Amino acid sequence: MTEVRAGIVVTGTEVLTGRIADRNGPWISERLAELGVEVAHILVVGDRPEDLEAALRFMAGEGMDLIVTSGGLGPTADDLTAEVVASFVGRELILDEEVEEKIAAILRGFARRFNFDPEAVREANRKQAMIPVGSIALDPVGTAPGIVVPADGRVVVVLPGPPRELQPMWPAALSAEPVRELLERATPLHGYTLRMFGIPESEIAKSLREMESAGIALPEVEITTCLRRGEIEIDVRYRDEASDIAEDVRTALAARHERHLFSLDGETIDTQVASLLEGHRLGLAESCSGGLLAARITDLPGASDYMAGGVVSYSNEAKTGLLGVDPALIEAKGAVSPEVAEAMALGALGRFGADVAVSITGIAGPDGGSERKPVGYVCFNARLADGTAIARDPVIPGGRADIRERSALVGMHLLRILLSGEEAPL
Amino acid sequence: MTEVRAGIVVTGTEVLTGRIADRNGPWISERLAELGVEVAHILVVGDRPEDLEAALRFMAGEGMDLIVTSGGLGPTADDLTAEVVASFVGRELILDEEVEEKIAAILRGFARRFNFDPEAVREANRKQAMIPVGSIALDPVGTAPGIVVPADGRVVVVLPGPPRELQPMWPAALSAEPVRELLERATPLHGYTLRMFGIPESEIAKSLREMESAGIALPEVEITTCLRRGEIEIDVRYRDEASDIAEDVRTALAARHERHLFSLDGETIDTQVASLLEGHRLGLAESCSGGLLAARITDLPGASDYMAGGVVSYSNEAKTGLLGVDPALIEAKGAVSPEVAEAMALGALGRFGADVAVSITGIAGPDGGSERKPVGYVCFNARLADGTAIARDPVIPGGRADIRERSALVGMHLLRILLSGEEAPL
Repeated sequence: MTEVRAGIVVTGTEVLTGRIADRNGPWISERLAELGVEVAHILVVGDRPEDLEAALRFMAGEGMDLIVTSGGLGPTADDLTAEVVASFVGRELILDEEVEEKIAAILRGFARRFNFDPEAVREANRKQAMIPVGSIALDPVGTAPGIVVPADGRVVVVLPGPPRELQPMWPAALSAEPVRELLERATPLHGYTLRMFGIPESEIAKSLREMESAGIALPEVEITTCLRRGEIEIDVRYRDEASDIAEDVRTALAARHERHLFSLDGETIDTQVASLLEGHRLGLAESCSGGLLAARITDLPGASDYMAGGVVSYSNEAKTGLLGVDPALIEAKGAVSPEVAEAMALGALGRFGADVAVSITGIAGPDGGSERKPVGYVCFNARLADGTAIARDPVIPGGRADIRERSALVGMHLLRILLSGEEAPL
Repeated sequence: MTEVRAGIVVTGTEVLTGRIADRNGPWISERLAELGVEVAHILVVGDRPEDLEAALRFMAGEGMDLIVTSGGLGPTADDLTAEVVASFVGRELILDEEVEEKIAAILRGFARRFNFDPEAVREANRKQAMIPVGSIALDPVGTAPGIVVPADGRVVVVLPGPPRELQPMWPAALSAEPVRELLERATPLHGYTLRMFGIPESEIAKSLREMESAGIALPEVEITTCLRRGEIEIDVRYRDEASDIAEDVRTALAARHERHLFSLDGETIDTQVASLLEGHRLGLAESCSGGLLAARITDLPGASDYMAGGVVSYSNEAKTGLLGVDPALIEAKGAVSPEVAEAMALGALGRFGADVAVSITGIAGPDGGSERKPVGYVCFNARLADGTAIARDPVIPGGRADIRERSALVGMHLLRILLSGEEAPL
């Protein structure tokens, strides 16, 4: 069984210049990996046709079986992908009238809704119906169709740039005959993800070295470790024949890092906390994190089942007025203190009629730190209505954004530990 | 004066597989563009040495004067960048003892603080002191030094992967003699950014076509238009000789899109709102946006000067208890209604002792919509203590995350319009 290799070409000056982040390259890469396709490169180029052509030449030269492009299918003159791909595979562009009519129907709707001149919009978009001879058009989700171009034993899949158009079009791209044929040659990769919190990456590297010395055949599986938003993510991928080794790796890592491991199956802290909160009623009290914990909790659909609400008590008056914190306590201990954090959490329990609450008060910087309470000093209090509580006051490293985000993350982990009744490893 | 062209190679399987987003490519690209260096490609490769080598060969083959790599300098065995670059330029790796001592000093600190075995950590990191013969080491910010490698008329700059190590190391990379020589040949690009809200991209494309027909020499400047987090960003870059044309473009776009243009100089809505809030006291009341507006307002340092606080009133009880919304009003009009939005904003003014407030209540989905109030229906109320108010209740397109983020964005724009006394164009 041969390996199927793919390259991804992301086009767009706005991505190349860093003004918008590329969401397509990583997304396509993940989808291909699940199908067992080995992605070798993601190449970002601007709207210069020479650079896109060089990218295609490079991918072909490196022997890629599949090249997926995103972007450059829009209505403006600098959207040149279809043209460059056609010239690269030595085919002419022709107007696909069926596609043209589909685009026109979509645009009539837009023009009516937004009251823009329909003819101007239609003209700007007519070029979107031009596809290379011998290729397969994929129905537009926005106004740009995708294109599947079989060429000299390889396949070029041309997709639009906006993720909300590209992602819904993906299944159609996979079903196109030339792509289907290619995918039949790929061996699906299996994989799992472990997540840990509160441990440095170097400790995992050390464990892996020791596990290999102890006889686990690590080179048979692909292990990547990365620090992602404050947590360690360990990703293990393997083909059928290495299943046993992959299971040994999971067991060995779990045994070595029991205290820091919170997810054996890739489940995120957000999903875990959402499950643990079922049947509870949560109240939040945030200062330095400014609503980030509330935003994270309410990010998941169904949060209204357990989220009563939160107070962003940025001022002392808000701590006093909305959470009932005694002004004398703030005066005596400071707004950033374990005592005020406890009072905030108690206030959140009371004011929201909650049975579980988390409070966060800290110094996000860049100013406001002192020797005793430096920038990054954050006090947490997580508690149940029955009095069970966890209090922490770490100094979180990094800049203002890091401190704020990490505070929300610590809040999530305290919720998990509190609700699952685990011993607290933080 | 010749053009200086650069390529960026981002290494790391975790970036290639999409598990972490690449922040280095875009960041380096922006920095190089400011210096007048033309970035042609950003290429992401995994930890396979063959793929990194292919990337370097491609960049050299495309005639890049400067190649910047990020990542692969870590302590683990899959961190191979220094080795691959050395072999690519045909130099051996040697131990730089000065660098080794610097790393050792840093690691002694870590090992003490975190109580990990210092020898294990040091051994894992010794390889980080190996650099190609004839190259210049850049002092480590974390534990990995950067490396500047002059090679056959081009320069390869090797930087660590973590942005918090890479970014502080950048000035040292620019000061290294071979890079300095290269940059002297580049002509700095000027540029400005316009921002608009509430208008589709196709209208801008139409304006540009008409401006060109009217005689503005658009091909002399580089214009990129992109939809970024719900706003249109128009970026114009030009060299000295095209200054007049660039100014004409700015004037013409401003005249055509006065109602939707809010920034002529790239200033973000966040910074504008922060300035407008000076001397005010802000209270927020959020339901469907779940704290995202509060998080956005408090993202900027100094927010405590004007941010009194916010209530995330996710439950009806929170709307009633913490914001004083009449339960009968919720019963009669629904929690998502212009009337409840108004009551929430009035509640935020009162409870926080604020002189300006914004409320958001809507249906973020995926469930909970009805025919009259579909998913995406969001009610806003922005008001001053003197009674001046703006109310809106649009249906926001997209999924749950889009609706929540866009709600916070609309909240920002309502604040801007309210505080600047502009006519409301939303």
